[in-house]
Amino acid sequence: MNEKASISRTSDLLPEPTLRRLPWYLAYLSTLRSASVQYISTTRIAEALDVDPSQIAKDLSFLGIRGKTRIGYQVNDLERALRDYLGFDRRHNAIMMGVGSLGAALMADSGLQRYGLNIVAGIDINPRLAGSRIGDVEIFTPDHTAALVRDLNIKIGVIAVPVEAAQEVADLAAGSGVKAIWNFTPSRIRVPEGVVISNTSIYSHLAVMYNRLSTLSID
Amino acid sequence: MNEKASISRTSDLLPEPTLRRLPWYLAYLSTLRSASVQYISTTRIAEALDVDPSQIAKDLSFLGIRGKTRIGYQVNDLERALRDYLGFDRRHNAIMMGVGSLGAALMADSGLQRYGLNIVAGIDINPRLAGSRIGDVEIFTPDHTAALVRDLNIKIGVIAVPVEAAQEVADLAAGSGVKAIWNFTPSRIRVPEGVVISNTSIYSHLAVMYNRLSTLSID
Repeated sequence: MNEKASISRTSDLLPEPTLRRLPWYLAYLSTLRSASVQYISTTRIAEALDVDPSQIAKDLSFLGIRGKTRIGYQVNDLERALRDYLGFDRRHNAIMMGVGSLGAALMADSGLQRYGLNIVAGIDINPRLAGSRIGDVEIFTPDHTAALVRDLNIKIGVIAVPVEAAQEVADLAAGSGVKAIWNFTPSRIRVPEGVVISNTSIYSHLAVMYNRLSTLSID
Repeated sequence: MNEKASISRTSDLLPEPTLRRLPWYLAYLSTLRSASVQYISTTRIAEALDVDPSQIAKDLSFLGIRGKTRIGYQVNDLERALRDYLGFDRRHNAIMMGVGSLGAALMADSGLQRYGLNIVAGIDINPRLAGSRIGDVEIFTPDHTAALVRDLNIKIGVIAVPVEAAQEVADLAAGSGVKAIWNFTPSRIRVPEGVVISNTSIYSHLAVMYNRLSTLSID
């Protein structure tokens, strides 16, 4: 085992369902902390979140954390361990590809910063935006991408361009050396092997919601 | 069958995987249209999106659309049919619950408008925001929620408050008569039966991406 592996607690490839549930637990723990609750049992977490208690115990065991019999988990400790494990307390440098409406909106969301996403540069095809800033972050033309990724130690490319340009811009980001693509377009982007792809297709979620709504309304 | 059902093409409860793929097809068709491509076959869609061709034909058959032998689908027609079917061309009135960093950012995203989400009012617990506007949209205190939902024919409540307040605010929205909740918090929100819930937990997607990144880096 090399040094990096030995210091990284997130070195295991967790099952994605577990990784999706851990933020629920974290959100619930934040609620408990703000209500000054000190201890919580898996049974109560299970009731609150409608997840099987044995599943919760199993998910949390990935973190190497076990509750105490009868007492359960210490809220503050578990919240801290979850934030650490999920990587929210580390800084992950990112570049915003496309600073139109959605890209600029995401850059303005301080929540991403709180969850460890550190956007350090923006790219836009509109040359008039070059040199301008959104918050503290400078905008550059696309030909600067590779130099920025290298010089600013950028690992993540966030794609928020029109669908027509999504694949081309993802290729530019991956070719410039980012290790992960966070795709906010509804496009199905392809990335080279070894590059992580994460899709947050906001508008696809709308489609599901509209369909469910229209089904309700015909009763 | 009542009148609403007979005029609504989206009256069937589609399988969620199909509903998630349809926006991919739509995005790809937009790319083709902007490249002035006139016809497209399932085989080529399948190659571009890495989806089985027979799956594509099946998904599109839900829309009552069939390609022509050898020629395939007419790009403009299929794009229009998909947008219509997915509800992106209709207006769905929505209320933004919480106009902090993320809520205000979403209100500033004109993309949501283009995909049929029409945010007509904002709610925030901060009384100093009452009466202010984000774009054209006025912000109100929480006690106005029910009257706004009723008077402005609001169907969707978008939840973008801190996790600690997520359930309470969802209860307020559902109690005020919205038919769907779009949850942007990492909380697992519970809604009354008959209310649609759609989760877009941006920060949960970050957790999955960070984990995959950390696994890459130990090779």
